[in-house]
Amino acid sequence: MNKYLSEFNSVETVNERMSAGIDPRLRKVMESLVRHLHAFIRDVELNEAEWFTAIEFLTRTGKICSNERQEFILLSDVLGVSMLVDAINYRRPAGATDNTVLGPFHVAGSPERAMGDSINLDGKGETCLFEGRVLDISGNPIAGASLDVWSDNHDGYYDVQQPGIQPPFNNRGYFRTGPDGRYRFRGIKPVSYPIPHDGPVGQMLKAVGRHPNRPAHVHFLVGADGYERVCTHIFVAGDPYLESDAVFGVKESLVVAFEAIEGADTKWKANFDFVLKAL
Amino acid sequence: MNKYLSEFNSVETVNERMSAGIDPRLRKVMESLVRHLHAFIRDVELNEAEWFTAIEFLTRTGKICSNERQEFILLSDVLGVSMLVDAINYRRPAGATDNTVLGPFHVAGSPERAMGDSINLDGKGETCLFEGRVLDISGNPIAGASLDVWSDNHDGYYDVQQPGIQPPFNNRGYFRTGPDGRYRFRGIKPVSYPIPHDGPVGQMLKAVGRHPNRPAHVHFLVGADGYERVCTHIFVAGDPYLESDAVFGVKESLVVAFEAIEGADTKWKANFDFVLKAL
Repeated sequence: MNKYLSEFNSVETVNERMSAGIDPRLRKVMESLVRHLHAFIRDVELNEAEWFTAIEFLTRTGKICSNERQEFILLSDVLGVSMLVDAINYRRPAGATDNTVLGPFHVAGSPERAMGDSINLDGKGETCLFEGRVLDISGNPIAGASLDVWSDNHDGYYDVQQPGIQPPFNNRGYFRTGPDGRYRFRGIKPVSYPIPHDGPVGQMLKAVGRHPNRPAHVHFLVGADGYERVCTHIFVAGDPYLESDAVFGVKESLVVAFEAIEGADTKWKANFDFVLKAL
Repeated sequence: MNKYLSEFNSVETVNERMSAGIDPRLRKVMESLVRHLHAFIRDVELNEAEWFTAIEFLTRTGKICSNERQEFILLSDVLGVSMLVDAINYRRPAGATDNTVLGPFHVAGSPERAMGDSINLDGKGETCLFEGRVLDISGNPIAGASLDVWSDNHDGYYDVQQPGIQPPFNNRGYFRTGPDGRYRFRGIKPVSYPIPHDGPVGQMLKAVGRHPNRPAHVHFLVGADGYERVCTHIFVAGDPYLESDAVFGVKESLVVAFEAIEGADTKWKANFDFVLKAL
């Protein structure tokens, strides 16, 4: 047992302080956190001014959080932490639809709509038909699967970012598949947009020479009894930010070719099958 | 260049995003931070609920910060980070007085007092005479050295924690040595106290079975032209928390035997020489 902390025993000294009998998982996480945090500080020989910059950065990040904004999730996102946690927790067999980050704009209680309905309530943007199937890993349709869908509007904002400007639940909807496992709804072709970058996270991105943009995408939460829920996006092929998503959310399997439809009211079509892994 | 982040390339994918031409020190710090942060997540295979607990913890830690309270510094302190940064940045030759953490209770502009004055303004606590010398590493007295001193009151609170209860600058003072390098002032024998533990950091300490107490100490900032400033404490030998300081601030060289004085108005005496390293 070390009495006093030094440069050479700091990890052990801190970790030995935890009591016997605490939650073993908490102990494991905290021990590892201290070990890696101290290794980082030793590695870069962090100076006092840098340490204080970090303290101030974290404080400002906390202060800007509100019911409408979660800057620590944003920080986790831009450091690749959210996607790493996602990757570790959702290792799926080949063929099953990949997960990606939930993001900060999901809203519970989206209105249930009938197949074929439009989720675009403000009539703005390039209309798009979304269709496909929900399948099990053998290719059988899943009846009664739920699809919770949300996307930004033509200006790159979610409804919750513009209360009073967009109607509530604009570009959101909840659908349930029939026996054929098919879904079909109208919306708009999503557009790329910057993550909120007027706060500490935006300042950090600027300092390291990164842009804040996300490639255009539509979010889906797809679930069914007996299957692992998929939290994912589909991305628009050809988007200029596909290979530099500010939050690292893109996976090759989720990039979809949006097909232009000549002469129709609906300008685009996107087809994507979701494949769920049985529990 | 990795296009998409996976469990196996996450560090490189994030770090490759930084632009060429950014500040090289910032690049080094950020690259190391991402490497160690991702290593931690992989090591414990952090799950989503744990990730969200961390997001909420950090958010609450930011929210509780105010002009009077810096919970992120407290977090850094209890994880041994502050003392590790201190140790790395103040490697001193043998014989020079060791540094320790500044802590959150230093106040600039302490009133300058004459040698022999008392810094205890509320008349509460066990009176103590502090005396000693400020020396260079060869043992020569340093004239014109400044000593900025602060300690808690008899109840374990700093004046700034109790505005309206304690007089301003209670148990604080600023002294300047003459040609003999000697200092001498009256105050109180400090008492041990808990760090603020009614917030997220206190909850974390409780969860890992640690107490929030610091052993009794007096803070000193000691400087002189041509010498590296020393930021340190002296600790009271025999304190029950010496070997379990919640912030890991104790060093063996800083533990001082407080000597009881029989039959005098001043009950205790503490003698300590500060040895400064030339710049």
